[in-house]
Amino acid sequence: MAGTDPAAWAKEGERIDDLQLSGLKILQDPKRFCFGMDAVLLSGFVRCEKGQLLDLGTGTGILPLLLSVKTGAEHLTGLEIQKESADMAERSVRMNGLEDRITIRTGDLKEAGVYFPPASFDVVTCNPPYIADLHGLKNPSDAKAIARHEVCCTLQDVADAAAKMLKVGGKLFLVYLPERLPELMIRLHETGLEPKRLRIVYPTKEQKPSMILLEAARGGKPGLITEPPLIVCDASGVYSEELRRDFGY
Amino acid sequence: MAGTDPAAWAKEGERIDDLQLSGLKILQDPKRFCFGMDAVLLSGFVRCEKGQLLDLGTGTGILPLLLSVKTGAEHLTGLEIQKESADMAERSVRMNGLEDRITIRTGDLKEAGVYFPPASFDVVTCNPPYIADLHGLKNPSDAKAIARHEVCCTLQDVADAAAKMLKVGGKLFLVYLPERLPELMIRLHETGLEPKRLRIVYPTKEQKPSMILLEAARGGKPGLITEPPLIVCDASGVYSEELRRDFGY
Repeated sequence: MAGTDPAAWAKEGERIDDLQLSGLKILQDPKRFCFGMDAVLLSGFVRCEKGQLLDLGTGTGILPLLLSVKTGAEHLTGLEIQKESADMAERSVRMNGLEDRITIRTGDLKEAGVYFPPASFDVVTCNPPYIADLHGLKNPSDAKAIARHEVCCTLQDVADAAAKMLKVGGKLFLVYLPERLPELMIRLHETGLEPKRLRIVYPTKEQKPSMILLEAARGGKPGLITEPPLIVCDASGVYSEELRRDFGY
Repeated sequence: MAGTDPAAWAKEGERIDDLQLSGLKILQDPKRFCFGMDAVLLSGFVRCEKGQLLDLGTGTGILPLLLSVKTGAEHLTGLEIQKESADMAERSVRMNGLEDRITIRTGDLKEAGVYFPPASFDVVTCNPPYIADLHGLKNPSDAKAIARHEVCCTLQDVADAAAKMLKVGGKLFLVYLPERLPELMIRLHETGLEPKRLRIVYPTKEQKPSMILLEAARGGKPGLITEPPLIVCDASGVYSEELRRDFGY
């Protein structure tokens, strides 16, 4: 219940972080995985005025938590393959008193069709594992490896799940690596998810981009809007005005 | 011949413009088509230290002229379907005394394989028609329409010609519309031209991009480098330092 001593929700090794947004808090275990700027930027890129939202690979639930405030989604569902992460997400939801609005489901996004009816979501979000290369992974079952590397799912798995879960005209919102932009566009297009809006995140205006944010529409027509650059730090090395204003940094 | 009175090269309605680069000049007819910033930015994006360069749809020859100074290409060939444009390009080449280095050929890029041996170029450049929509074109035979709309060739035609003309490992350099970035990446990839380097041109850092510059490699492996943003005008509305330094504006 909201208002209860938050410390009561944390298990050993976990900490409670303030999300600096409407009093939201999240349970995290630094030994496992902590959310990064990618999740926060994606949460600011998502547009959802109403309806049902599904977050694929929700981890500890950072996206449903932030999106419960930042969007008008009526209900948000987070699907997560790692039981420990899903358990933390579920406790964070209850810690924030959001159990009526957010549901956490443990399961594999490759089997999303087993858990949910097809074409039942208006919006799908995903902060997928970026790194295709599995060589050199010391421990592929490690929570960080699963979150960052394509151990449990590939980009095609994410696209397939989104295409199956979205209504026609429904929107997919992703954060991804600039190095894989061509592959991302090809896979989404071939899966019936047409890229519609792109924002490129540059650490400074003198640097290569660190991330891309992409919106695709199930069954959409070709035609991409690329937005103005999102420049994280200005010339003096502090967060840019836009990042502070629109993303809460 | 260089040094001859330039006015002797111009036909009625044509003017001679100074390219502000090593004394280069070009013949243009404002009633037909004048080159734009897209051609100049593409010329600054091309990398070619040596070898044979082919410019598809060279128009009045702006790219071979600029690239004869900006790159180390041993020989540059411009292919142009419109006889009047090719004639102007050819006269500009001679006016600049570059006939030993630049060849202009009248012909259709869809038939490039008829004019040149396959896989005979190290670099192909193209500033293709951007606009797919042919509806509402008052005069599809108009020189400006042919340069801007897909009247005579589509993106796929350009990709096919480049793939046929390039050596394995050879590079294609294009300027294109941001709206068609997904289609560009899909077409190139499917034609065996892998996107390798992308630069996005923003009029200012608050605006949507106006152009994209893309390098692709014939037979290349996936993996895209997106460069820092190219921002045309700074906050005070004047050309940015980079544009002045690297692109001669």
